[in-house]
Order: sequence, then structure tokens, then C-alpha cells
Amino acid sequence: MPDASLSSKYPEALDAAIGFFSHLPGIGKRTAERLGLALMSWKPADVTAFAETLSELRQKVVACPVCGNFAPAGQPCSICSSPARRRDIICVVEHVTQILTIEKSGSFDGLYHVLGGKLSPLNGIGPEDLNIAKLERRLQDGGVTELVVATTPDVEGEATAHYLAGLFQPRGILVSRIAAGVPVGADLSYADAATLASAISHRRQM
Amino acid sequence: MPDASLSSKYPEALDAAIGFFSHLPGIGKRTAERLGLALMSWKPADVTAFAETLSELRQKVVACPVCGNFAPAGQPCSICSSPARRRDIICVVEHVTQILTIEKSGSFDGLYHVLGGKLSPLNGIGPEDLNIAKLERRLQDGGVTELVVATTPDVEGEATAHYLAGLFQPRGILVSRIAAGVPVGADLSYADAATLASAISHRRQM
Repeated sequence: MPDASLSSKYPEALDAAIGFFSHLPGIGKRTAERLGLALMSWKPADVTAFAETLSELRQKVVACPVCGNFAPAGQPCSICSSPARRRDIICVVEHVTQILTIEKSGSFDGLYHVLGGKLSPLNGIGPEDLNIAKLERRLQDGGVTELVVATTPDVEGEATAHYLAGLFQPRGILVSRIAAGVPVGADLSYADAATLASAISHRRQM
Repeated sequence: MPDASLSSKYPEALDAAIGFFSHLPGIGKRTAERLGLALMSWKPADVTAFAETLSELRQKVVACPVCGNFAPAGQPCSICSSPARRRDIICVVEHVTQILTIEKSGSFDGLYHVLGGKLSPLNGIGPEDLNIAKLERRLQDGGVTELVVATTPDVEGEATAHYLAGLFQPRGILVSRIAAGVPVGADLSYADAATLASAISHRRQM
């Protein structure tokens, strides 16, 4: 029978590559193995180019110094620097990837601000742990009249929205909240109680 | 509405990384995007380590000079160098990854030889395009009494097996072929005609 002492089936370097792939989201052990093996059939120059791209990635792509979106190093992001965006309205999101979700919907043409999370006293996350000081500075410049708070519609997301409203509403900035309700096209039968409660309490006249 | 001139949603370097991920098997555009974004939330040092692993991969892992299996550079592979393997029987496979499939089954304890494909006159692949010369040299050394041809049981795989039998059987080496038939545990109803024909013509006495 095959040598049981063969602890690993692959040379060390290939095992290491497979290990890194398996740390990516949604990539299990078997898929990571397939991806590692696939690299062995790529042209060596392509693997090297892939490696170079990764090695420069975190130097070349950084957080936008204005809003926190992904940006080329040393420049504001493509949204902050676009002349086509409205500058009087800022949408506040928890995470940078949520900017893209909103952009794909094509439903917002203002600027963004990434908080980096939401208030969560139970996890020891207070206002000073979020990117709020920078938001205050952006709003001090004037020109912004509305803040759309697009945090998750859960207890912590609502608490974050209330905190921002308490902070900025007295300064004459309209703080609004995205609507929480039944998803468009979704069957009511599958809506959870909290979603339905929000949909009914925030009903609007036809 | 959002700036339509935003041709890409991400900085160039991130787009490049996503592009490389999307060239991996089974990774579509959306998954590649998720993997690229995941790297942006890794510790930068981990991304750099991943990049270094990839940049060294094809230098550190090469084809075993004896059999063609994956091997650390400058050494024979773990199977060729294992004292626990039988050296009188060689299993011939088309591709290096098939060695692992057989190893996982735990059903073979000899050595391997990677052909790098199968004979395919229609695609212009003749014996000189496969790793057959090296196999001849291995067999000239003597000591090997059997060659198990584990090419795919299709027309080209059979042709390859016949070619090898014609070449080595006259030299006193037993050339055998893996059995083609109904997969163990599979319902007969789902077997295709060619598989059933092989299973019936190669039936054995109980």
C-alpha cells in the first residue's frame, strides 16, 4: 500500500500556495487544491505576473483620504474626484464594499463616507472607533446639506444612525435613513417579523 | 445619476488582481471580485507572503526528472524517492494530477509515469509529442515487469494503450489496462451505452 509516511502529497511550495487560497472566502480545501494545481499549468510568466500584481496590491490600492473608498495611492477615489457627482449629499456606509453595491444600483449620485463599522457597545465599539471625526471635518466645510445613513437596519445600525442624527441634526444638516421593508419583488410570506414590522410602521400614503 | 464615464469601479491594481483570479478554473467574474476584495481586508503582510509564495511556485515546484510528477526543484518526487514503493510496476497516466487521484484511492503502490497527453492523430499529437522516449529509457534499465496503462477509456486513450502494448510487450514487459465499466455504486440506469458495452464484454467469472 502507498507510503503512509507521505504526510503531504505535494511539494512544500505548492502546499503553501494551496494554503493561501484556502484562506479566501468561499474557497474550501478541495477548491484551493484545484486552484493551486491550475497555477502549475499556467505559463510561468503568468504566475509571476499574478504574484507581482498581488505584491503591489496593498501599496497601490489604499483607502481614499477623503471618504475611505478604495483609491489609487496618493489620489482621492474615482467618486470623490468625479465632477459629475453631487457634493451636497453624503451617504454613510459601514464598509467600503457597500459603496459598490449602492453604485451598482445606480440610485445615488452623491459622495460617500465609510465608517468602518457600526456602534456596538457589547463589542466595545464606540464612536471613537469609527471614522466619525473625519466625517465631522468634512461637514464643517459646509456645502453638505444631507447625510443618508445606510448602515444595516439592525439594532446596532439603528443606534449608529441615531448617534449621527444627534450629532449633526443640531448643526442644520438633514440626517436621513434608508428605508427598511420588504425587498422589491419578494414574496411577503418569506419576510421575517422585524422586516414586516418596519414595512408596516413606515408605510406611506399612495 | 452616477458618472457613466467610470469605466472601472476599482483602482487599476485591484482590477488586475481580480482579472488574474478570474482566469482560475471555476472562478467567475463575481467570485473573482469577491476574492480580490477579500485580499483588501487581509493583513498587508499576508498578501505579500501570498505573492512571494506564488512568485517562487514555478521555480520551486517542477516536474520530477524521472516520472513527471510534481517535485521539489533538483530532487525526484516523493513517490520516486520513497523506499516503500514497488519498483517493478509503473502506472502510466496522461496528466500529473491523475497521479493524485490514484494515490487517494490507495489502490496502487508502484511508480508512475506521466505521458503529458494521449495519442490524437486528429489533433496532430503523435508518439514523439508524448513523454514516451523517457519511459523507454526507464524500462531499458530492467526491473520493471508490468506497465499499467491508466489513460482515459476513450478512443484516444485506447489507441495510446495499444501503442504502448505494441512497443513494450515484445520486450517481455506485461502491459495491462485499467478496467472500464460501470462505476462502483452507480445505478445501471445512468450508465451510457459505451460503458455498458465495455462492462459486459469484459465481464469476469464469479
